[in-house]
Amino acid sequence: MTEWDPDRPVDFAEAEEFLRACYTELPKLGPVEPRLAVVREQIAALGTYTHTHAELVHGARMAWRNASRCIGRVYWRSLTVLDRRQHRAPDQIFDDLVSHLHTATGEGHNRGKLRGVISIFGQAVPGRPVTRLWNDQLIRYAGYRSGDGMTGDPQYEQFTSAVTRLGWTGKGSAFDLLPLVLQTGDGEPRLYELPESAVMEVPLAHPEYGWFAELGLRWHAVPAIANMRLSIGGVDYPLAPFSGWYMGTEIGARNLADAHRYNQIPVVAARLGLDTSSESTLWRDRALVELNRAVLWSFERAGVRVTDHHSESRLFLTHVERERRAGRATPADWTWIVPPISGGLTPVFHRYYTEADQRPNFYLDRSAQ
Amino acid sequence: MTEWDPDRPVDFAEAEEFLRACYTELPKLGPVEPRLAVVREQIAALGTYTHTHAELVHGARMAWRNASRCIGRVYWRSLTVLDRRQHRAPDQIFDDLVSHLHTATGEGHNRGKLRGVISIFGQAVPGRPVTRLWNDQLIRYAGYRSGDGMTGDPQYEQFTSAVTRLGWTGKGSAFDLLPLVLQTGDGEPRLYELPESAVMEVPLAHPEYGWFAELGLRWHAVPAIANMRLSIGGVDYPLAPFSGWYMGTEIGARNLADAHRYNQIPVVAARLGLDTSSESTLWRDRALVELNRAVLWSFERAGVRVTDHHSESRLFLTHVERERRAGRATPADWTWIVPPISGGLTPVFHRYYTEADQRPNFYLDRSAQ
Ligand code: HEM
Ligand code: HEM
Repeated sequence: MTEWDPDRPVDFAEAEEFLRACYTELPKLGPVEPRLAVVREQIAALGTYTHTHAELVHGARMAWRNASRCIGRVYWRSLTVLDRRQHRAPDQIFDDLVSHLHTATGEGHNRGKLRGVISIFGQAVPGRPVTRLWNDQLIRYAGYRSGDGMTGDPQYEQFTSAVTRLGWTGKGSAFDLLPLVLQTGDGEPRLYELPESAVMEVPLAHPEYGWFAELGLRWHAVPAIANMRLSIGGVDYPLAPFSGWYMGTEIGARNLADAHRYNQIPVVAARLGLDTSSESTLWRDRALVELNRAVLWSFERAGVRVTDHHSESRLFLTHVERERRAGRATPADWTWIVPPISGGLTPVFHRYYTEADQRPNFYLDRSAQ
Repeated sequence: MTEWDPDRPVDFAEAEEFLRACYTELPKLGPVEPRLAVVREQIAALGTYTHTHAELVHGARMAWRNASRCIGRVYWRSLTVLDRRQHRAPDQIFDDLVSHLHTATGEGHNRGKLRGVISIFGQAVPGRPVTRLWNDQLIRYAGYRSGDGMTGDPQYEQFTSAVTRLGWTGKGSAFDLLPLVLQTGDGEPRLYELPESAVMEVPLAHPEYGWFAELGLRWHAVPAIANMRLSIGGVDYPLAPFSGWYMGTEIGARNLADAHRYNQIPVVAARLGLDTSSESTLWRDRALVELNRAVLWSFERAGVRVTDHHSESRLFLTHVERERRAGRATPADWTWIVPPISGGLTPVFHRYYTEADQRPNFYLDRSAQ
């Protein structure tokens, strides 16, 4: 992928392609020709153009629909779009991110009924500084190294050191919520502590094994990716965090299981009393399944929306078929769509997909990694 | 992939590329220049050339080394090559295939100590008819449909019908060995029954669950792929069956588990007494692990060489590293290398690979599918 250049003017051809698709899919928007004329003039005069609210909403949904690594795309039409384009000051952005989490988590008796939400902040304008969030997700846990040992999430050790240098102090637990860091242009980075009320968490227990709760594992309810640029019709939105709900495997087969993350497979296997003297006892696979059972069971018990990889694989194929009937291809990246546990058992394993880069879409820039 | 044309003359450039690589890797073969001169003349005169025995052996090993879907390539240097280029009549080919199975399985007190073996039959010569094997593997089980039900391997239902039309009668069990079918040019296909002594099988039982043996499951010891064309330095060997040993997942997570194969996950889950009322109990994943434990345990108990996906993934990365040190890339197809169970737990999951089509290699022609 070529690196994004924030100072490049918008390409009218890309704007036109998006607008034609958008107005064809949404007949209620009326004819596209007058709109194209306006956009052409705006680009000629300013090097960019602005989306109407309806274009923004549908463009974000199309971007999700085109996200070839996402297995959850059957829900694309239901994305809630929070239009935050007017809000540029860090304090205001932070308030908006907190309200994103409230909307995404659900409030009152709806708490836990997660919704797909995206917050779209100001578009990139040639020559104007961009406000960036350092975090790759809105909610993540700190990682601390002490001698040979590690507490928390090793993936965030560097990030944790960086915010510590900026004056942050963690409690040193395995699940300390990291602060958000916002930075405008070359200005000073600013730290913001997430209020507890905005972060729903689920303590993990197991339907059969009482000792599981003693491991003290937990995870946050809302996965909110915050470091991808949203690109719609040639216009880029560098800050556009989005969130859905978890597929259990992301927690149970990656975040808590990966050797370079919480590395809980040996711990669970030891508690299960498995024979770890040889790989062929499949002790890793057995511990993995129990860890994933605990995740799904705990989320369901806490009333937090979550999905499993079997159901979601089937829904994804329903989506592919629906899209086909609507005359659209569904580009998909097999290596991301097939879940990291029991891949062969899921119907998504047994077929190939096209891999085209269709726009609108989400992009990860090197500078944001 | 473009379809293979058996009547196309050998491309000298491809011959040269192979010979240079081969003679560089094997200095004991001496200088390549005189050999290139001979080959150039042979191609000019006959449209093709013949490999020396040493070239054939090393070419086959290179083809294995380049097989981007194979996780077992760490063993590439140890491939036993049976040079069967002189044998063209079906009866003789059949005898050679039987002796392939004996060599691959091991004999006497070595029975079960499987070895990597390839039998290479006559090269394709423009205008001369090719003898083809209908079977995709040397050892496979028949599949019979009766009303709504299915006995045996559904993947071979069509093949079973075809050989039945040729006069074969199966016992109607779930694990009837299919006959081999050889056909020369447009001639009559000929049926050959494999002798029992050539086919080692393993009845499946479980280290903990006594009832598992009652399922009556079994599998053959030797996986022998027979429908791929071996291509070395521009010369094609249409019949070149090869065999190694199983990675347990091929049996436990595909052949016996796939819904379109033996479909044993619901059966095993029922015996385990799992709650199948919801996908989120992960009953499929639990049954899958127990089925795979049974496969590995039974093969080990029977003294039949087998490997598990954890050990083999690590060995594969050792191989990639060794090849890198030898100055060679290891093209790999992620979707085949990552095992169909607990993918995320294996180190091969957490990286990308190059995907180049390097020759020598094995190819599946449409006409052989
Ligand atoms: C509604 C429930 C959702 C589910 C169950 C879901 C599921 C997933 C999963 C399992 C992944 C792979 C994650 C990984 O392995 O790291 C993924 C990736 C992704 N999803 Fe979704 N998703 C959902 C909502 C959304 C929404 C609302 C958007 C955007 C509007 C979205 C866009 C993406 C993108 C861009 C990726 C790739 C991320 C990357 O490259 O790191 N998803 N999704
Ligand atoms: C020695 C032990 C071996 C192991 C453990 C091993 C392992 C594997 C596995 C797990 C697969 C994927 C099979 C599937 O998912 O259907 C595979 C594919 C393959 N292997 Fe190996 N292999 C071995 C020996 C060999 C040998 C001796 C050769 C050739 C000389 C070979 C060439 C290939 C090729 C060409 C494929 C791809 C087959 C296709 O496209 O259908 N392998 N191997």
